[in-house]
Amino acid sequence: MNILSRIESTEDIKKLSPEELEQLAAELRLFLIRSVAKTGGHLASNLGTVELTLALHRVYDSRKDRIVFDVGHQSYIHKIITGRREQFSTLRQFGGLSGFPKPYEAVDDAFIAGHASNAVSVAVGMAKARTALGDSYDVVALLGDGAMTGGLAYEGLAAAAASREPIVIILNDNNMSIDQSVGGTASLLQEMRIKPGYIRFKRRYREAMSSMPQVYQFSHRVKEMLKGKLLPSNMFSAMGLNYIGPVDGHNLAELESVLQLARDMREPVLVHVLTKKGRGCSFAEEHPEIYHGVGPFNPQTGELPPAKPSFSECFGKVMCELASEENRVVGITAAMCLGTGMEEYATRFPRRYIDTGITEGHATAMAAGMAKQGLIPVFAVYSTFLQRGYDMLIHDLSLQGLHVVLGVDRAGLVGSDGETHHGLFDVAYLRSVPGMQILCPASFSELRSLMRQAVLEMDGPVAVRYPRGGEGMYKDHHPEPETVLREGTDITIAAYGTMINEALKAAEILGEENISAEVIKLSRIDGDSFPETMESIRKTGKLLMAEEVCDAGCVADVMISAAVRSGVSLRACKVNLGDGIVTHGTREQLMHLHGIDAAGIVKAAKELGNGEAET
Amino acid sequence: MNILSRIESTEDIKKLSPEELEQLAAELRLFLIRSVAKTGGHLASNLGTVELTLALHRVYDSRKDRIVFDVGHQSYIHKIITGRREQFSTLRQFGGLSGFPKPYEAVDDAFIAGHASNAVSVAVGMAKARTALGDSYDVVALLGDGAMTGGLAYEGLAAAAASREPIVIILNDNNMSIDQSVGGTASLLQEMRIKPGYIRFKRRYREAMSSMPQVYQFSHRVKEMLKGKLLPSNMFSAMGLNYIGPVDGHNLAELESVLQLARDMREPVLVHVLTKKGRGCSFAEEHPEIYHGVGPFNPQTGELPPAKPSFSECFGKVMCELASEENRVVGITAAMCLGTGMEEYATRFPRRYIDTGITEGHATAMAAGMAKQGLIPVFAVYSTFLQRGYDMLIHDLSLQGLHVVLGVDRAGLVGSDGETHHGLFDVAYLRSVPGMQILCPASFSELRSLMRQAVLEMDGPVAVRYPRGGEGMYKDHHPEPETVLREGTDITIAAYGTMINEALKAAEILGEENISAEVIKLSRIDGDSFPETMESIRKTGKLLMAEEVCDAGCVADVMISAAVRSGVSLRACKVNLGDGIVTHGTREQLMHLHGIDAAGIVKAAKELGNGEAET
Repeated sequence: MNILSRIESTEDIKKLSPEELEQLAAELRLFLIRSVAKTGGHLASNLGTVELTLALHRVYDSRKDRIVFDVGHQSYIHKIITGRREQFSTLRQFGGLSGFPKPYEAVDDAFIAGHASNAVSVAVGMAKARTALGDSYDVVALLGDGAMTGGLAYEGLAAAAASREPIVIILNDNNMSIDQSVGGTASLLQEMRIKPGYIRFKRRYREAMSSMPQVYQFSHRVKEMLKGKLLPSNMFSAMGLNYIGPVDGHNLAELESVLQLARDMREPVLVHVLTKKGRGCSFAEEHPEIYHGVGPFNPQTGELPPAKPSFSECFGKVMCELASEENRVVGITAAMCLGTGMEEYATRFPRRYIDTGITEGHATAMAAGMAKQGLIPVFAVYSTFLQRGYDMLIHDLSLQGLHVVLGVDRAGLVGSDGETHHGLFDVAYLRSVPGMQILCPASFSELRSLMRQAVLEMDGPVAVRYPRGGEGMYKDHHPEPETVLREGTDITIAAYGTMINEALKAAEILGEENISAEVIKLSRIDGDSFPETMESIRKTGKLLMAEEVCDAGCVADVMISAAVRSGVSLRACKVNLGDGIVTHGTREQLMHLHGIDAAGIVKAAKELGNGEAET
Repeated sequence: MNILSRIESTEDIKKLSPEELEQLAAELRLFLIRSVAKTGGHLASNLGTVELTLALHRVYDSRKDRIVFDVGHQSYIHKIITGRREQFSTLRQFGGLSGFPKPYEAVDDAFIAGHASNAVSVAVGMAKARTALGDSYDVVALLGDGAMTGGLAYEGLAAAAASREPIVIILNDNNMSIDQSVGGTASLLQEMRIKPGYIRFKRRYREAMSSMPQVYQFSHRVKEMLKGKLLPSNMFSAMGLNYIGPVDGHNLAELESVLQLARDMREPVLVHVLTKKGRGCSFAEEHPEIYHGVGPFNPQTGELPPAKPSFSECFGKVMCELASEENRVVGITAAMCLGTGMEEYATRFPRRYIDTGITEGHATAMAAGMAKQGLIPVFAVYSTFLQRGYDMLIHDLSLQGLHVVLGVDRAGLVGSDGETHHGLFDVAYLRSVPGMQILCPASFSELRSLMRQAVLEMDGPVAVRYPRGGEGMYKDHHPEPETVLREGTDITIAAYGTMINEALKAAEILGEENISAEVIKLSRIDGDSFPETMESIRKTGKLLMAEEVCDAGCVADVMISAAVRSGVSLRACKVNLGDGIVTHGTREQLMHLHGIDAAGIVKAAKELGNGEAET
């Protein structure tokens, strides 16, 4: 690490010779593999963007210019060379560096990132602000071909073109989003990749530039001529964007000169860069989908510890079962085949499997169309990403009461991905969708049973929500809407999903202190009728409701209100993740931090018992 | 109405001669103008699609084939000729025909519509269902150029192309969305409109077809040759869609033959049709934006009754005031300049006004980028359409606490547009956004005052929500978070926004019956701290909270829960729009139907007083 260890800021990058830069790239890859092997994180995409990131930092000044990452899991190299190398071993750990750009970490992180396809819109906003306020920095958006499948990117590109603002949009095209990018967008990019003539263009452009270095900027006609004759014509050009590419994303000199050119055009420009995911690391190059986001692994061989059983895996198995039994079942994912446990299903039922790309809105509306015509679509989607489909849940699904099943994965805390990825809002937004039925399995066997019920027996929209990771101590099978798991007389503790584990542990601890807690597990949380819980509250006079969601829109308020309105007098408290923003760390650390683990429940229960009810 | 009066079903349309069809088109226009002049409704877009609708019904059978309207306010002709002519005088009236397609009205209405850009996604889902289930109907999506600005349409088009399903997508291009469509999409379409050669293509295609009628379908090579040589190349082609156009949308014979051709290609095809909004009605042709959606008017002159003062108008005035005082203010609308009262602002501050097209997601993310770099963006948007921006509110605005002001117009019941347009969900979804401050003016003077506060004094994300239409009896100015408007001892009635009028009326009526109601007006509804209301509940022991929103996520539950958790014992009831779907009608009719008017509040208050608390 001869060169890397000397890099204190991006100024140092600017001083390096071409040979030193090559060496730095190699050192960065080694550093990245060794470090991510320990912390886990996003490997393949960062290995693919080493040269691109170095070129960006040679052409721009990230302290002043605004480099807007899309999704942002490809920002590791950026972090390492903007003063965060020494903290890099804390990546994604509680209290350590975030795995995504975070303006609170460094001024070099221009904007938050985590959800795909927003970077161009954000960059357009920044560019307009720059011009309106008379500032003079540059604005760059960096997005992948996966992000390009999202309609938000299209809205942003159209706006960039219309703005006529100097904005450079870099399309980092590695020919796959998290899973293979799909659909018309992919074939559009495919066509461009094979377009010849970039090398020819570059040579001629350089000749033109060298013969008239100053003239260029002032001569609109010449520029138009150059663009018209040399730049390929395509969708981006048709929208009014200047298009340059495709460019070899692992050729530092080429990248740097193209980025300079794009920067100096003072117009909206799209630079199409071709990169290879996992570049320079054999196992990551061969299986970029596996080394997209991983836990710790062997840095030499890439060997991963055996995967633990998870709700996602269980979901995938149930899907196979259901598809075997019922021909009308169709499985949908929005670029999250692996993440949602759908690989086996995708292989076994290719004609009844659809990966729509990063398009949760479209996937929801398409599912509605399918359901209207007699299929039973099951859309497997992360809680946080389904936020993109909120309007379609109401407008396309709910208003017609269509039978679509949502497999809402990653509901609750997701751990090390942190604040942009936690599934804290789905209970609030799903409950607001008219007629949405919300099922919350607490164990694998309940997931199986509730999925069968949702797909084969129920009608109308149904969401089955389950967390990242596996089941806890509770492995039982009580999929009824309400079940008294433990009888007690002093306080009613209600919970749903895997929070039931904490509730049961808390009841155990309270029991040792002679506080008799009745524990009620809910497996359905829509509506406001909870007769067994009400009966329990009548008996105990106290309700503690524990939830792994944000406070606004939580079930506790509904439950307390229902009790009061049915004439039950009670004392109550809520245990949940509050109204703030939840950072990254392990699930256990975060549960403890927010007081929603067994210890937190015990504490809240005792306070309620002592009359310190305000929570 | 010689011909129109004889049309009982679309079968009758198919039997007409070209001359009779022309006459029918003229009769339909006259019928439409006379009828909408009485009921109000969408005029210009329906006048523009008379021939297109007739052609569709000659080529397809809407009882079997699925014609998916996008937005759907252009479905009047479709409704008139599919057996609903006699009911057409009930359009948009309580209990009458909906102004949008509704499957519950007729089998000819394939899918619900109201929000833009979803039709292609829905059609793709339907086409896939058809193929999977071995059915044999045709699927058509009909969308406007405004809808084409939305990213959801792009996602749908990409999916249509990838599906290779026979789907016909009709782009009804009238060169304006509700306001002028904007951005790169618009310029892309502009370029296509001026593409020559359609006539030439059509002639040569017909020649080719007539010389090999049967061969065509089986000869892939010939088809490819035809497409490659004759069809214009553009974004749609690049995505993998067949493209035909542009076609004269007022030439019935041409439309019919092109639609037949598209239908028979058995592939995804986009047909680009040029129409004129308001066609055949001078005042609507001249001012399509005014006659887009109107109340009753004079059918001869188009004269409209003078507009009543509205919250939207008031919002526009405040925006002008704020922009004059503060250079950093920027006004944003998503294709709703007129609807949100922004015309004057747009004229006076063109450089600080942005119409993004129908792109609520992009507009929200762009506003976030602006705020990050120092501007003060104000995004004026309807409550129901902001559902499209839910994820961006959380991810782009909230996580960084950016100071963006949302002018949430049409919050609550919107009246005759009905179920797809009511703003019933914003309280639920805005409350779930971390840090979102939610202000609810109840009068024009409060809107002015709270907007000034939101823009000039507050920080972080702020939503100012206000209803369609004007203020009620309450014209006062109490923009404090909680204000006791009327003192009482028997029951606390809390309300926000213009619901305060009903609360005050109810208190008056209750007073006449010797029930002393304390009325509290809230002008801020985020969080769960309502100290003055709590104090009032301590005094009265009873809370009735009246809201013009859906039940799930309402403030009442939060308030009741807060009271219980702070140790206040109370009886309570909720008055709101429930968990179902709210139909169309006047605001007054709908309020009465759902028991949220003064009479409903009085009834609920008495029941609560009598101990019949369950509501």
